[in-house]
Amino acid sequence: MAGPGHCRTRIAPQSGAGFRLRKGEVLRVVDPDGEQVSDLFAFRDGEPACSLSSGRTIDYAGKIYLTTGDVLWSNDSRPMFTIIADDVGRHDFLLTPCSQEMFEILYRHRGHHPSCLENLLDAFAPYGIRPEQISTTFNIFMRVDVAPDGAVAVKPPLSKAGDRIELRAEMDLVCALTACSAEGSNNGTFKPIDFEILRAGAA
Amino acid sequence: MAGPGHCRTRIAPQSGAGFRLRKGEVLRVVDPDGEQVSDLFAFRDGEPACSLSSGRTIDYAGKIYLTTGDVLWSNDSRPMFTIIADDVGRHDFLLTPCSQEMFEILYRHRGHHPSCLENLLDAFAPYGIRPEQISTTFNIFMRVDVAPDGAVAVKPPLSKAGDRIELRAEMDLVCALTACSAEGSNNGTFKPIDFEILRAGAA
Repeated sequence: MAGPGHCRTRIAPQSGAGFRLRKGEVLRVVDPDGEQVSDLFAFRDGEPACSLSSGRTIDYAGKIYLTTGDVLWSNDSRPMFTIIADDVGRHDFLLTPCSQEMFEILYRHRGHHPSCLENLLDAFAPYGIRPEQISTTFNIFMRVDVAPDGAVAVKPPLSKAGDRIELRAEMDLVCALTACSAEGSNNGTFKPIDFEILRAGAA
Repeated sequence: MAGPGHCRTRIAPQSGAGFRLRKGEVLRVVDPDGEQVSDLFAFRDGEPACSLSSGRTIDYAGKIYLTTGDVLWSNDSRPMFTIIADDVGRHDFLLTPCSQEMFEILYRHRGHHPSCLENLLDAFAPYGIRPEQISTTFNIFMRVDVAPDGAVAVKPPLSKAGDRIELRAEMDLVCALTACSAEGSNNGTFKPIDFEILRAGAA
């Protein structure tokens, strides 16, 4: 019998992975070393006009911090994922994935910098996804505090080594997932991210 | 000589309008009666892959509440608008425009309900925009409070009769603007929205 760690895949630091998820399957994302962020984006398989929506999700959930029991919605108001387990309880759904332009604008970086957007695009390339189809990602383990005056602060993730979140697919999906490339999101170091796909009923 | 009210256009309650804005022109949006919301979305003229991005804007601004001096960014990290005047100081950039599905899911509405999404689509129709290209709108005068625990609450707008916001176009744009259709966003009544396009140098 396949144990829970049977199909674990490791995403190397500053890289990404793309995969299909069938309805009912569970995506388990694990932070193996702690304090690392993983950006997730998804499309309905075969219907890329249907994609993950921060704005719909925050509206329907009535909150910006999502955890166990909450649903991630598509841009056309269909449930895409349900969070069924969560060791951390803090993720971000406000910010777009880090990009070459972000490193230049916010950090005055010069030259190429690996980024979640580039890694998501590479991961989605076999599925024919264009850059403008990737909007705000669900930034797993990313800690973004919002002050009463609206100021936003990116802080080290609350995830400890081995912490996980589990998301059940509510439709057939094409997904991409990263091990984040932004120094500012993961307390200054680059680490891997692990994920598993648990077959329906095996979770 | 054209006075500031020369080209004022009124958007009827629960409807929308589409228009081009040249680089340097200023879009003035006025709440004629107070406590009304106006959803704004925009594409680069001739390049619809470049569109308004909540996630990029919040990341670059470092805050969720935007006002005078702040820039609204595109999904590919180019400045689209700069807010150059603002009587109100509270707008929302977290939530997607109200939609038929939203009225059904959040308010259990049955039958057709006018919505900002439908009105934006109608306004963008002459420009060939598809529904999935409209993501989170800049919701002018909309008041969405975020509690320390992340809970989101839609409250009556702070705008009083005659209050305005002015946004300068930083590139040639195709825009659509609504007079919001959601009872919950405008303190229970439906009102018009006025707008003017001020030519470069005339603002």
